[in-house]
Amino acid sequence: MAVYTDIGEDELDRLVSEYDIGQVLACTGIAEGVENSNFMLQTDVGMHILTLYEKRVDPADLPFFLGLLDHLSTRGFPCPSPLRTRAGQTLSSAAGRPAAIVSFLRGRWPRKPKPVHLAALGDALARLHLGAADFPLRRANALSLDGWSDLVRQTGSGADTVMPGLSEELDREMVTLRAAWPGDLPVGVIHADLFPDNIFFLGDELSGVIDFYFACNDILLYDLAICLNAWCFERDGAFNITHARAMLQAYRERRPISRAEFDALPLLARGAALRFLVTRLYDWLNTPDGALVIKKDPLEYWHKLRFHRGVADTRAYGLDY
Amino acid sequence: MAVYTDIGEDELDRLVSEYDIGQVLACTGIAEGVENSNFMLQTDVGMHILTLYEKRVDPADLPFFLGLLDHLSTRGFPCPSPLRTRAGQTLSSAAGRPAAIVSFLRGRWPRKPKPVHLAALGDALARLHLGAADFPLRRANALSLDGWSDLVRQTGSGADTVMPGLSEELDREMVTLRAAWPGDLPVGVIHADLFPDNIFFLGDELSGVIDFYFACNDILLYDLAICLNAWCFERDGAFNITHARAMLQAYRERRPISRAEFDALPLLARGAALRFLVTRLYDWLNTPDGALVIKKDPLEYWHKLRFHRGVADTRAYGLDY
Repeated sequence: MAVYTDIGEDELDRLVSEYDIGQVLACTGIAEGVENSNFMLQTDVGMHILTLYEKRVDPADLPFFLGLLDHLSTRGFPCPSPLRTRAGQTLSSAAGRPAAIVSFLRGRWPRKPKPVHLAALGDALARLHLGAADFPLRRANALSLDGWSDLVRQTGSGADTVMPGLSEELDREMVTLRAAWPGDLPVGVIHADLFPDNIFFLGDELSGVIDFYFACNDILLYDLAICLNAWCFERDGAFNITHARAMLQAYRERRPISRAEFDALPLLARGAALRFLVTRLYDWLNTPDGALVIKKDPLEYWHKLRFHRGVADTRAYGLDY
Repeated sequence: MAVYTDIGEDELDRLVSEYDIGQVLACTGIAEGVENSNFMLQTDVGMHILTLYEKRVDPADLPFFLGLLDHLSTRGFPCPSPLRTRAGQTLSSAAGRPAAIVSFLRGRWPRKPKPVHLAALGDALARLHLGAADFPLRRANALSLDGWSDLVRQTGSGADTVMPGLSEELDREMVTLRAAWPGDLPVGVIHADLFPDNIFFLGDELSGVIDFYFACNDILLYDLAICLNAWCFERDGAFNITHARAMLQAYRERRPISRAEFDALPLLARGAALRFLVTRLYDWLNTPDGALVIKKDPLEYWHKLRFHRGVADTRAYGLDY
């Protein structure tokens, strides 16, 4: 839950005066989000989002994140658009933290996604990948093979307290993924965290994609693999093939995929499942009980990983090449 | 921290369709507040606050709370104004809970109150008391003498784990307050929880008073006593006599106070301090460590109680009768 940092009225007025957006009319802390402190900031010219970057975000990454939002929004992609100060900067500071003000996007995230949402998601992912193709900055994915290995090592036998035998399973999975992880698929900027609460709709129309703070350069299809896990399983763990088909079909209508990309999807989905399994596991084992954070179940992603292990090929996700 | 209940898009659309406010454009959970789930609800006609009432609010009290807001806002008092459904109701339901939509008030609560804010507070309290004088509904104050006694009994010797000897001090204070509590002062509707985060300003202008969920019928000056504690102590515990004077002076310019009211203030302030001391103490001892709530220090109010015990008379608050 967000709003870790409060911001005093003098400090807020000073920050807002750097921009050409008039006076502050209201500033309300937002409950959603876990990484940063976010506020709905109403000024004379309209509604914005003010973000104070907390310690989980590396300040050195902010030019990449804000530059990407600027790049994509300039190309018509429905992501938050960073406002510029009168000095032309998208990054400022307030309350001792890096700060940015971005445009407010209307819409609500879908609590019960339907195929129409999945198709919009697939199309948006392809537009994001295509739109960022000429974005000049780069950011390595800290949560790829080496990052997963580090987390597996750090959680160690603690994994077995969550599920007996999990530690050995993770070691074995890492061996498989390292050996088979593709090195020749198209790469580019990916969102890398496009869960349902990061995408807004007005009715059936996609109105916004938010929360780019895991965006990085990696295999483009890995973004789809993350979404397969985040959007295509029911609460009871059942795989929703209709959702998967709608997303994948819409993606490749906008951005055609190669046979190699198509074939790699089950393996990429295993990797994507492992990625959230090990970060959740780490948080599960290392978050103090009294912390104001809801811990997410790591085993949800263990079950997803096992599903992808068991599929014969990408046709299990609802479409032929 | 708020937002205990999420609300799905179908359920939200259904709720909003009961009102004449167009379509939902955005609905964002608010981080502030601890009793209910609050959302900033943007529709075609503007910004509103949607509240889902959680279990700490008795549904039987909602006609009083919503009726009071309606009564006061009709008389020009800057509190949230409940919207009416097409059927004329201010109370509806959603996600299995009582629900209401009220007008959104601009402004921000003062993190560092200045005398100008205290004067506006005093004036607003007097306007609230006068404006509610002809409000027909009544609600007893569950957190007066009997309620305090109950909490002192329930916390029992647990108080001594917070400060050695506190349990006996509380018993003794209850005896004093019961014996001396005035029975003949003017009564009426009071806010009873007017902390700085419940009052909004635009610059130096008061723009809103919110959170009426402790409002009740009680001694009018007791409301001022609560504010003496909530607004007139520095973080280091020092009493700010300039704040107190500004508030009390502005109040009595709008609503003249009797000699008896004036003289009763130190005792009322002791009672008001005890009220927050015992509720914080109860929460301190009974909130599970893992709960997503920040526990407030009960001893802050013990120090305030001792300050009021030590004053000779109301002149210690900065003004003569």
